[in-house]
Amino acid sequence: MHNLSPLPQYLIKRYHGWKATSYTENRAWFRRLATEGQRPRAMVISCCDSRVHVTSIFGADSGEFFIHRNIANLVPAYAPDGLQHGTSAAVEYAVAALKVAHLIVVGHTNCGGVAGCHAMCSGAAPELEEKTSFVGRWMDILRPGYERVKDLPEADQVPALEREAVLVSLENLMTFPFVRAAVEAGETSLHGIVHDITEGTLVQAEDGGKRWVTV
Amino acid sequence: MHNLSPLPQYLIKRYHGWKATSYTENRAWFRRLATEGQRPRAMVISCCDSRVHVTSIFGADSGEFFIHRNIANLVPAYAPDGLQHGTSAAVEYAVAALKVAHLIVVGHTNCGGVAGCHAMCSGAAPELEEKTSFVGRWMDILRPGYERVKDLPEADQVPALEREAVLVSLENLMTFPFVRAAVEAGETSLHGIVHDITEGTLVQAEDGGKRWVTV
Amino acid sequence: MHNLSPLPQYLIKRYHGWKATSYTENRAWFRRLATEGQRPRAMVISCCDSRVHVTSIFGADSGEFFIHRNIANLVPAYAPDGLQHGTSAAVEYAVAALKVAHLIVVGHTNCGGVAGCHAMCSGAAPELEEKTSFVGRWMDILRPGYERVKDLPEADQVPALEREAVLVSLENLMTFPFVRAAVEAGETSLHGIVHDITEGTLVQAEDGGKRWVTV
Amino acid sequence: MHNLSPLPQYLIKRYHGWKATSYTENRAWFRRLATEGQRPRAMVISCCDSRVHVTSIFGADSGEFFIHRNIANLVPAYAPDGLQHGTSAAVEYAVAALKVAHLIVVGHTNCGGVAGCHAMCSGAAPELEEKTSFVGRWMDILRPGYERVKDLPEADQVPALEREAVLVSLENLMTFPFVRAAVEAGETSLHGIVHDITEGTLVQAEDGGKRWVTV
Repeated sequence: MHNLSPLPQYLIKRYHGWKATSYTENRAWFRRLATEGQRPRAMVISCCDSRVHVTSIFGADSGEFFIHRNIANLVPAYAPDGLQHGTSAAVEYAVAALKVAHLIVVGHTNCGGVAGCHAMCSGAAPELEEKTSFVGRWMDILRPGYERVKDLPEADQVPALEREAVLVSLENLMTFPFVRAAVEAGETSLHGIVHDITEGTLVQAEDGGKRWVTV
Repeated sequence: MHNLSPLPQYLIKRYHGWKATSYTENRAWFRRLATEGQRPRAMVISCCDSRVHVTSIFGADSGEFFIHRNIANLVPAYAPDGLQHGTSAAVEYAVAALKVAHLIVVGHTNCGGVAGCHAMCSGAAPELEEKTSFVGRWMDILRPGYERVKDLPEADQVPALEREAVLVSLENLMTFPFVRAAVEAGETSLHGIVHDITEGTLVQAEDGGKRWVTV
Repeated sequence: MHNLSPLPQYLIKRYHGWKATSYTENRAWFRRLATEGQRPRAMVISCCDSRVHVTSIFGADSGEFFIHRNIANLVPAYAPDGLQHGTSAAVEYAVAALKVAHLIVVGHTNCGGVAGCHAMCSGAAPELEEKTSFVGRWMDILRPGYERVKDLPEADQVPALEREAVLVSLENLMTFPFVRAAVEAGETSLHGIVHDITEGTLVQAEDGGKRWVTV
Repeated sequence: MHNLSPLPQYLIKRYHGWKATSYTENRAWFRRLATEGQRPRAMVISCCDSRVHVTSIFGADSGEFFIHRNIANLVPAYAPDGLQHGTSAAVEYAVAALKVAHLIVVGHTNCGGVAGCHAMCSGAAPELEEKTSFVGRWMDILRPGYERVKDLPEADQVPALEREAVLVSLENLMTFPFVRAAVEAGETSLHGIVHDITEGTLVQAEDGGKRWVTV
């Protein structure tokens, strides 16, 4: 393994600032979290997008949220085929090992992944249909969502598909036997929200996703 | 899709607090980011663990980091097999579409995923060997790392494996043709660090991972 | 006085969120409360336990409840001996100065203080018998309650003692001449409840504590 | 024990509202907290005053804060005399059993207890000097604070004494051997703040209480 570079100085400086302030002020708590293990109350599944940090929106402090982030906050359907499923592994760990009380899927507006999915499904981005496109194959998860929005007026399709990215993921979560069991036993609950990165607003799915209501 | 629950009140309150302070103070910048698109300087690949938020450690502000988080901050090897690879999709998007300048893999101590991998590979957790274990199959990625640490003294193996989780991922990143090309063209650089969640310290890999040096 | 630390950042952020929302929305009322003084309708005596916030259970708004919280929601008997009695001072202030209409003692299940008292009285925790144990000496208040439950079946003793912690406190409240006078004049009333923190239920004492009825 | 009254209907209604909403939405978490025990990050010592609920100011959710509330947020000095010390018991439980990472003393403006202490010490309230006055004897804890403010201009004395109520308590906390040991070992930290209930502002003690800085 060659080709390793030292961390850029601006990050080293920020890290030292954090170490001298936040870490020092919270050392006792951080040590307890390390010794006794984490006990996060919720798992959050959100997008990798650099403009959507739920740690900010929800004021997350150390130990509160178990956070999985992938392109377009997607969860694939349950498929115990012995292959590598990073998202499914994260869900399994959160529900079976950590026993989180909430599973929160956080979508957002202006999502590049969702826009790519729309372009692909509507024929505008054939390169994403190629077998070798990782983004294309990942966005295949959202194809059922596209089917539900494709007859809407043109301008409404992408925003609707951003909400579908949340709903499809929630539906897929319920295909995992251990998630379904935990939800039905009242041990965990499902939540779907979409964050508008322009206006800072938040809507949440109600009535099984038939309505989206401003929080 | 039934079984949807409203967001817990404590999160709604925190969100409203964020909206009235951070969002309001940064509205102009957030709107520019929304209109013009994100342009993150770095991609960070880190663990879902609730005790490791790089947004804290590096004081990440909106728009700075494209963050993928999965169990044990792992990257699988390049496999353009047409199947769903969430991590590979995130890497592809970051490098090919966003052209990030840095790819930073952030491991951490006390990692539940790494501990599980060690237990599995050393025979102590046969349930993780089952085909249906998503965590087990995901941790298969780290098996080559286990081979390199298994002859160390018992107490050193898990800490060494936590570092291997970073090195294996960096090695796998270089199997992606577009990553290799970008690295070799000097368009992006690779960085490997491990965060000690007890002491708040940070070490980074040098000499291709042969040495780990305190930052 | 050295050894003072700045408030952790996560609390500062939450405070700023509260200031920008709840405070701002209620500024006029908060200012009136400040200028004209508090006029709480009830005094609540409850446990310090982090899982029992009567402000949540009863939706308490600013100005409504005068709240004293101590280990196991105990009130000692009247003892005008010139020594420091924090609980008695709080009761005196609530009844004599604030003239609250209700005195509500709120017990709860899974109470660490009550469990400690049971262990101490049954001989399982001799360290709590030591003169220097503040928790032990404080739980002495509940010894008469232990006498009334010690012959119950083993599994029933601690739950019964949690209810005794409420009843003993109510009995002790009536040993304060000013409380007795206010109760007998119909100026204040006594209430005893126990909150089940697992099921969220509430029972209240009736018939002088002979029966506990779900609210 | 006669003289028990049923809970007022308005509280029963609010409780049922809480049960049907907040409890139901958070049942899984509440059950986990009940089963696994509380692990609060901080102990807060604040006043009984109905206008100062730290659960609001800091957006406290279930499980986060171990809260002791007494008149004027006072902590007496360490006195292992075998007598009943409710505040000392709460501190002992928080530090020795729960191992909280922060001890936060929260004072406030317009404090009736502090005003009473000032009146007593300045000779304006001889009734508080009587042996039988529980409030008077409790406020004796703050006499050393009065000595430090009595030569200030008249109008500054009570506000300064409100801050002394925090500082004296912090000083007294350090007289407890187990608190001092925990602070010196970096296992817990001390914080002093005063909340202005009129303006909603917050100041914190710095430089060992020599300066108070707006948060």
